[in-house]
Amino acid sequence: MGLPPVPNVLVVGATGVVGEELLRLLESRAFPHGMIRLAGSERSAGRRVAYCGTEVPIEPLDERSLEDVDLVFLAAGGDVSRRWAPAAAEAGALVVDSSSAFRRDPAVPLVVPEINPQALPAPAAGGAIIANPNCSTIIALMAATPVDGLAPVRRLVACTYQAASGGGRAMMEELEQQARDWAAGRPLTTEATGRPYLFNLFSHDSAIGADGANEEERKMAHETARLWGREDVRVGATCVRVPVLRAHTVAVHLELAAPVTVAAARAAIAAFPGVRLVDDRPGNRFPEPREAAATDDVLVGRVRVDRAFAAAARTDEIRADAATTGLALLACGDQLRKGAALNAVQIAEAMLERAGHATPADRGLA
Amino acid sequence: MGLPPVPNVLVVGATGVVGEELLRLLESRAFPHGMIRLAGSERSAGRRVAYCGTEVPIEPLDERSLEDVDLVFLAAGGDVSRRWAPAAAEAGALVVDSSSAFRRDPAVPLVVPEINPQALPAPAAGGAIIANPNCSTIIALMAATPVDGLAPVRRLVACTYQAASGGGRAMMEELEQQARDWAAGRPLTTEATGRPYLFNLFSHDSAIGADGANEEERKMAHETARLWGREDVRVGATCVRVPVLRAHTVAVHLELAAPVTVAAARAAIAAFPGVRLVDDRPGNRFPEPREAAATDDVLVGRVRVDRAFAAAARTDEIRADAATTGLALLACGDQLRKGAALNAVQIAEAMLERAGHATPADRGLA
Repeated sequence: MGLPPVPNVLVVGATGVVGEELLRLLESRAFPHGMIRLAGSERSAGRRVAYCGTEVPIEPLDERSLEDVDLVFLAAGGDVSRRWAPAAAEAGALVVDSSSAFRRDPAVPLVVPEINPQALPAPAAGGAIIANPNCSTIIALMAATPVDGLAPVRRLVACTYQAASGGGRAMMEELEQQARDWAAGRPLTTEATGRPYLFNLFSHDSAIGADGANEEERKMAHETARLWGREDVRVGATCVRVPVLRAHTVAVHLELAAPVTVAAARAAIAAFPGVRLVDDRPGNRFPEPREAAATDDVLVGRVRVDRAFAAAARTDEIRADAATTGLALLACGDQLRKGAALNAVQIAEAMLERAGHATPADRGLA
Repeated sequence: MGLPPVPNVLVVGATGVVGEELLRLLESRAFPHGMIRLAGSERSAGRRVAYCGTEVPIEPLDERSLEDVDLVFLAAGGDVSRRWAPAAAEAGALVVDSSSAFRRDPAVPLVVPEINPQALPAPAAGGAIIANPNCSTIIALMAATPVDGLAPVRRLVACTYQAASGGGRAMMEELEQQARDWAAGRPLTTEATGRPYLFNLFSHDSAIGADGANEEERKMAHETARLWGREDVRVGATCVRVPVLRAHTVAVHLELAAPVTVAAARAAIAAFPGVRLVDDRPGNRFPEPREAAATDDVLVGRVRVDRAFAAAARTDEIRADAATTGLALLACGDQLRKGAALNAVQIAEAMLERAGHATPADRGLA
C-alpha cells in the first residue's frame, strides 16, 4: 500500500551529525508526519532533542521502536542498519538507510532522486529498504550527470577533498579543538584522527583492499555504476580528507563518448535540479566549501576542457568554443545535507509523491 | 668555461620564503661558494640576514650586483627575472631562475636533475639561464617519472592539494593568523587571500585562460611535456589550494602505453633518487604534508591500480598482482624545498659536477 500521506516516523541515530541534520530538514521542509520517535545509542538514551518547538526524548532502539512506524530513517552506521533495516521493512515500513550496509545489495535500490528516480520501488510494494548513496559519489554525480545526459561518460577520474563531517562529530570537534590547541601553543589533541589534522591532510581513513583502493574509492566506482545503471563506466578515484568542516569538494575529469561544448555542459549543469552553477572565470570565483556548507545545492564550476581526455590535446591552446570529449569540473556540496540527510529526506519525499501524496513542490520547496 | 669550482653567488629575493629556504640549503649542504651577495626589494634593503654564523646585508638590486658574480639564484618573481636574468647571463653568470618567466622559452632548459639532466647546458657554454619548474609539476613528476620509465605515460590526470607557501609569506601568515582569529572568536583577517582560508579551500588563484584552465594547470601540462620531452603526453590538471602551510600533495592517475604491475611500479618509485616510498596499506599510512614539510624527499604512496585507465575495469575486484595500464599514486613534497629552492640548488650542483668540480656526493650528501 506504500506510505500513508502522513507517515509515522522513526529516526535512528538522532543524536549523530547526520541524524541531527535530518531532524532539522524534516522540520524546515515541513515534512508531513504523524508521530515521530527518535532512537539513539544507549549512551544517548534519555537525552531530549529539540524538534518543532518541543523536546523529543531519545529512546533506546528495540523491537517496540518499530511499532506503528511507517517510515524509518537509519543514520547510525552499518551494524545498526544490518540488524534493524530488514526487521523494519518486514514490519511494512519504508526504510531509508544512510549507511553502506545495503548499497551493494542488488535487491535494494540505491537512489539519488535527481539522478535515477526510476530506481525507486513502486508505492504498492509495502515495506522496503532504499539505500542512500555514499556522500562523495552523490556530490560528484550531481555534477557529472547533466554532462552524462549530453554524451555518455566513459571514464571518470574523481579526486576528493573531503570534510571532517564524514568522520562524524568526533572528527569535526577534533579539527576545531586542534585549531584552538595550536593557537594556544598547546600540543594538539589527536584522539579521533590519530594525527595532526589542522594544516594537514591524509588519505581517506577507510580500509585498503587487495587492489590498493580504499573503501571510499571502491564505493565511488561501484555506486557510480549503479546510479547510472552502466557497468561499463570506468571510475578511478583518489579520496583524501582535508581540514574542512562539513562540505566535500570533488574534482571530476570526464571522458565522453561524443564531443560536447563547454557552453552546452554549463547550460545542462545550470538547468539540473539541486545544482547551482558557480563559474565566474573573470572573478576567479568557483565552488568553495564555506559557501556550500549548510546549503542544499551542490555548487558546480570550473567547467572546462580536460586536456587528458580531449580528442586533440597536442595544441597548447584549445579553442574555448570547440566541442570536446574531455571535460573537467569542480563540485562542492555539504556532506551532511545532499551528501547524506537531505538525500535521505528527498528519497522519502519522492516516495510520498509516488504514492500520490503531498510533494515538496506542493509545499513550495522545490 | 662554465662555473668555477668555488663560484661567487648572488641570491635575488633573499628575504622571500623561497630565498630564505635557498640560503638555509646552501648553508646546510655546504654549497661551495666564494663571495655571497644577497639582493632584495627596496623594502628589505638594509636588513641583515643570518648566514653561516655571520650577518649578510640585503642590497638593492642594480647593475653593480652582477659584478664578479658566477652564479645567480633568482627567486623574486617573473618581473625581476625578465629584467635581470638576460643581463646576468650575458655577463657570463649561470642563472637559475625559480620564476615562470623563461619556462616556455625553448632556448632556456627547464630541468629537474633527477628527471632530465640531459637538458642541462654544456659546462663550456659560459653564461646561461636554466629555469626551475613549477612546484606542482616537480612533485607530480618526481612520482610519475619512475613509472614512466617502466612504460611511457600516455595520459596523466593530476589533482593538486596545494599549500599556502606557493602564495608566499603573506598567504602562509594569513592562514596562521586566521587560525588565531578563529580560536579567539575574532573576524578572520582576509587581506592576502580575500576569503576565509582556514577550514576552506579554493581553486588555485591564478588567472583563468580562454580554455578555462588556470595558469597553474597550464604550467603542469606544458612543463610535463617539456620535462619528459614528449609533446604527445596528455595532461589534465585541477589545481586547488588547501589550508596546509608548506607541502603540496598531488593525486596522480596515469594511463600507460603498456601494462606494468603495482609491484614493479613500487620498486621503481622506491629506487628513484629524491623519492621516499610511504605506502603502508595495513597501517593506512601514506604521504602527508606534515611529514613532507621541511624534508628534501618527495613522499610517494597509494601506489595502486587505477580503474579509469586499467585495460579491464569491468570487474569489481582487480587482481592485485596483475599488470595494468592504469596506475594511481599520491605524492607529497615540500613546496619550498623540492618544489622550489632545493631543485634550484640541485641544478647548480649538477652544473658544478658537469664542470668537473665537487659534487654533493663528494660532500656525503647524495
